[in-house]
Amino acid sequence: MNIVKPSTIAGVMELLPNDQLIFDKIKRDIEDTFKKYQFLPIDTPLIEKNEILFAKGGGETEKQIFEIVSESKDMSLRFDLTVPLARYVAEHFSDLNFPFKRYHIGKVYRGERNQKGRYKEFYQCDIDIIGHNSLSIYNDAILPRVIYEIFEKIGLSDISFKINNRKLLNGFFKSLGVDDSTDLLRTIDKKDKIGKEKTLALLEEILDEKRAISVFDFISNDLSNKDLLEKYKKTSSNDLFKEGLEELEKVYKYMTYLGIPEENIDIDLSITRGLDYYTGTVYETFIKGHESIGSVCSGGRYENLAGNFSKQKLPGVGMSIGLTRLFFKLEELGLLKREKSLSQTLIIPMDEAIYDYGIEILNTLRDRGENVDIYLESGKFKKKMTYADKLGVRKVIILGEDELAQKKVSIKDMVTGEQISKSLEEI
Amino acid sequence: MNIVKPSTIAGVMELLPNDQLIFDKIKRDIEDTFKKYQFLPIDTPLIEKNEILFAKGGGETEKQIFEIVSESKDMSLRFDLTVPLARYVAEHFSDLNFPFKRYHIGKVYRGERNQKGRYKEFYQCDIDIIGHNSLSIYNDAILPRVIYEIFEKIGLSDISFKINNRKLLNGFFKSLGVDDSTDLLRTIDKKDKIGKEKTLALLEEILDEKRAISVFDFISNDLSNKDLLEKYKKTSSNDLFKEGLEELEKVYKYMTYLGIPEENIDIDLSITRGLDYYTGTVYETFIKGHESIGSVCSGGRYENLAGNFSKQKLPGVGMSIGLTRLFFKLEELGLLKREKSLSQTLIIPMDEAIYDYGIEILNTLRDRGENVDIYLESGKFKKKMTYADKLGVRKVIILGEDELAQKKVSIKDMVTGEQISKSLEEI
Repeated sequence: MNIVKPSTIAGVMELLPNDQLIFDKIKRDIEDTFKKYQFLPIDTPLIEKNEILFAKGGGETEKQIFEIVSESKDMSLRFDLTVPLARYVAEHFSDLNFPFKRYHIGKVYRGERNQKGRYKEFYQCDIDIIGHNSLSIYNDAILPRVIYEIFEKIGLSDISFKINNRKLLNGFFKSLGVDDSTDLLRTIDKKDKIGKEKTLALLEEILDEKRAISVFDFISNDLSNKDLLEKYKKTSSNDLFKEGLEELEKVYKYMTYLGIPEENIDIDLSITRGLDYYTGTVYETFIKGHESIGSVCSGGRYENLAGNFSKQKLPGVGMSIGLTRLFFKLEELGLLKREKSLSQTLIIPMDEAIYDYGIEILNTLRDRGENVDIYLESGKFKKKMTYADKLGVRKVIILGEDELAQKKVSIKDMVTGEQISKSLEEI
Repeated sequence: MNIVKPSTIAGVMELLPNDQLIFDKIKRDIEDTFKKYQFLPIDTPLIEKNEILFAKGGGETEKQIFEIVSESKDMSLRFDLTVPLARYVAEHFSDLNFPFKRYHIGKVYRGERNQKGRYKEFYQCDIDIIGHNSLSIYNDAILPRVIYEIFEKIGLSDISFKINNRKLLNGFFKSLGVDDSTDLLRTIDKKDKIGKEKTLALLEEILDEKRAISVFDFISNDLSNKDLLEKYKKTSSNDLFKEGLEELEKVYKYMTYLGIPEENIDIDLSITRGLDYYTGTVYETFIKGHESIGSVCSGGRYENLAGNFSKQKLPGVGMSIGLTRLFFKLEELGLLKREKSLSQTLIIPMDEAIYDYGIEILNTLRDRGENVDIYLESGKFKKKMTYADKLGVRKVIILGEDELAQKKVSIKDMVTGEQISKSLEEI
């Protein structure tokens, strides 16, 4: 038979079972927490019509699309979970209850350049709250509370939520006489990458020196959350600025009321989320001490989710964890909680005459809820123990003719090497 | 803004949240049971190279493929989880521990005709045990044991495993002087669809009348499992027949030893699994009383999983649940276990001045592990109660100025309409 070399396409993460177990554990922690906070699951098809995916005009994403050729050419793989959400909410509008709290954990596709840690296929874990006509600002505090609990579960509770508000930023720019903030936002967004000096230099290319310094000071604030809020409440400014500040304060206050410790919240006026379509609250999330891996969960508030698909006004707020990239980074940093195999115990009957006795013990232990398995292949004892060893079990129950005759079992501890004999009742 | 009508491509199942909850519950029951029985998870990319997917030559499946156009044209969406498993095992051969027990729950894609209950995108839930060079027959009893537990969890324990063995069938055909059994298997496979008389007529087109009747009698047996096995053990026949019979008896016996009740097992010599690549055990699973929906879980034993990708001999046995189609059928039959919303209780503070008190109660109840949520939108009381009603919660905790002043809560039962007042300690 002609042998085809087995390999995946480039740019996809495929894990061996032990790593898959950890990945799935994190995915389930995320899902369980989403559910605990009353987000409802949706699961949209991986393939959407092109007219849906490119409704707002393609741009950069269109270049990264995986297009599909089938009966019809007008469909592609989704590149995020937000466009499908917009289509879903617009399509099923009259069947949904608003505010609609949905979560969605699924794979998305982007034709990224082949590069280590960059994936063409990756999991996104999204939560969004969608309102009809209006959505109160308190929802913006609920999302980070959910995310905080997820990172606690994953064992990474030392995270920092950087929060800001676009209205506050735009209000401030307006007070400086700047109406189109595109270039400013783009520059500020680069701050962490290019450093403070280069940022200032770039700002001075857009604004005069005085105003550039003013913007620079505004985004470089080192005050505590409370002092920062107090300082700007005393400043006289325009309504947009005041509205943004009020929203930011509510989000901050309710994040603490909902149980996020003060030290995990950082009001940071330099957070902009680039040129994304956010209009109010914006978030980024960093693992303290590992800020260099970038934000592990980002999002924000948007005015209108489904303008391309519906005349209904649907404001929302959302956050998203890029699980595949997060997993890659945690592995790189040695921060994954590794567990051994699924089971603690493997039963090894020495030959076929003992299989029935082995099954009897297996049934007994499983009925008790224990994670246990049995090895039913023929072969030498060494082969069987090698299998147990590779599996990573803690204990092996060895069954031979003596054990069967005496209705006993021999239990070998795979770590200490110690072997003891017990009766059926004792195990 | 130009409005694009929101709709999915045809032939995909997309559920509203309440149904998605049921779907996900079943999916999780399946996954948990797979894990309990020590199957390891894998999660292969949805896109595979075409040289992998079509390694054994396309045929019918190639016509159903969703091909992808991207940087490279040589990749497609997977149409099952078996080809990716073969590629996975061949690619990671030296890192795996054999017998390798893996499960995989994922979406696959086939360009089916648009038709009710036929999906282009559907979930498969697969378990397979892959051996290296050999794999004992006992494994063939383990798989239905796992599937039995899943259907118990789903609330459908009254199922029937129809089991057979290809060696037994081919041995029997050989004893009649038939070497190429293709046409016979194809005909027998149709029996349930076309009925006994037509089957006999078709058999008589392939064989002379005497042998046709002989085949027909063989596959139409109504004996109990034990009587059937006894009957054929007494028949003198060829080695292939004897080997098949011995395997079938072991699978049957160990299925009962592992706890599947006798009444849920049906040795049925007419089960062939069509022209699939099975070489020994074959299974189909039916919901008793609903046989017309077809087999809800099928599979069998195969000689060599990855012949196209590796020189290693990798025999295996597998079963697969087509979850999307099963879900559709269960819904049609009214067999889905419907639960209401995620939470039992919704807290409704009457206005913003009461929000902090509401959050206090929310935190208290959540810390106790209760599923509870809060409604923080402004609006009339009626709007708030409509939201609670649509959500399907059992109880609403109403908080107004009186409740805040007295540190009490009003609890309204949404079913009985009864409303009571309790102190914080009492709830």
